[in-house]
Amino acid sequence: MPYIALEGPDGAGKTTQMKALADSFAQAEQEYILVREPGATDVGKQLREILLTGHADKLDGVTEALLFSADRRHTIRTLVRPALAEGKFVLSDRTYLTTLVFQGYGRGLSLDILETLTNFAIEDTRPDLMLVLDVPVEVGLGRKDPLFAEGLAESRMESVGTDFHTKNRAGYLEQVAKHPDTHQLINAAQTPQQVHAAILSTINQRFGTNLQPAI
Amino acid sequence: MPYIALEGPDGAGKTTQMKALADSFAQAEQEYILVREPGATDVGKQLREILLTGHADKLDGVTEALLFSADRRHTIRTLVRPALAEGKFVLSDRTYLTTLVFQGYGRGLSLDILETLTNFAIEDTRPDLMLVLDVPVEVGLGRKDPLFAEGLAESRMESVGTDFHTKNRAGYLEQVAKHPDTHQLINAAQTPQQVHAAILSTINQRFGTNLQPAI
Repeated sequence: MPYIALEGPDGAGKTTQMKALADSFAQAEQEYILVREPGATDVGKQLREILLTGHADKLDGVTEALLFSADRRHTIRTLVRPALAEGKFVLSDRTYLTTLVFQGYGRGLSLDILETLTNFAIEDTRPDLMLVLDVPVEVGLGRKDPLFAEGLAESRMESVGTDFHTKNRAGYLEQVAKHPDTHQLINAAQTPQQVHAAILSTINQRFGTNLQPAI
Repeated sequence: MPYIALEGPDGAGKTTQMKALADSFAQAEQEYILVREPGATDVGKQLREILLTGHADKLDGVTEALLFSADRRHTIRTLVRPALAEGKFVLSDRTYLTTLVFQGYGRGLSLDILETLTNFAIEDTRPDLMLVLDVPVEVGLGRKDPLFAEGLAESRMESVGTDFHTKNRAGYLEQVAKHPDTHQLINAAQTPQQVHAAILSTINQRFGTNLQPAI
């Protein structure tokens, strides 16, 4: 199952890398689909909207985790598994790891609850390769994705400053250390071209593809 | 905590009874709030909409349970607990019991998963009195609530005929038997006035109120 996820804090260049990676797949005429969490499906787009407006409505962390998990299950059931069954690569912009890291490590929600919800959402469909873009905390502070950068909901205060980002980075590093077979750290404090090359090299080695740089 | 829920299959007269009960509370100048699941909050209304349209989009049972649980947690956290803290009665149109019965007994989802989600959603905030309107299966088939009557999503076929309703009724009866301290069966195969009187009598006895019939 060639299921590849791109993970990492906001500001690590994930969007740029995802686009370049998709271009490399296209140039190699390697069949793939792109998904993102949340928001890959029609229902997911509505949930993404709720999570964004819910920010203002003070949804709490567990409620958000339930919504992220609903989006995740629907995406995996209706998009990811069918594509894998057809032998296509699946490139996913974020996965359950984001929820574990941002809500668990970053905001202090119970990892047990989050892992239970993850199991309900994905069952046994886990990425074969989880590429985690790693940058120093200061870099991650540069840009803001409204869904993730500040931490959601009631605990906005706790996310001010570098504390939230420091905890998130520690979470990513711990999870990578725990899953050496699938999780791979990518040094994203390099040029976009260098990061892209590191990603392609990892994928080519793992899956026997012959992807060439697109940037 | 005077937290009272009205439960039962569609077609048992729940809407009529909820309205009459609220009128009795108002006439007795007893402070109360009305909530319903799903859809009591702004976010809940959006989720209710997703669940309705998701019917067509083939959301599966676990995805639905995650969404119901998110709605439930938000309702309990933002409406139910604050009202109880102010000493108000909370009258709830459906609760977690609907999810357990319709999705667990009716559609065969794992009760373990549903109970775990329930605990995430409500923690320790359970109704003090769960009034379960009971009618013969044939009566329940009379009317259709698009959210509940047919069972949701992919397994529409299994809900055709009386099988789904028979399982639901068995689920309600089993749950009432398991929780004799809080769950109370109400024979809803009587006139609305008689059902109303039975509900008021149960509440007056339990909470020392002096509610008078409103119909």
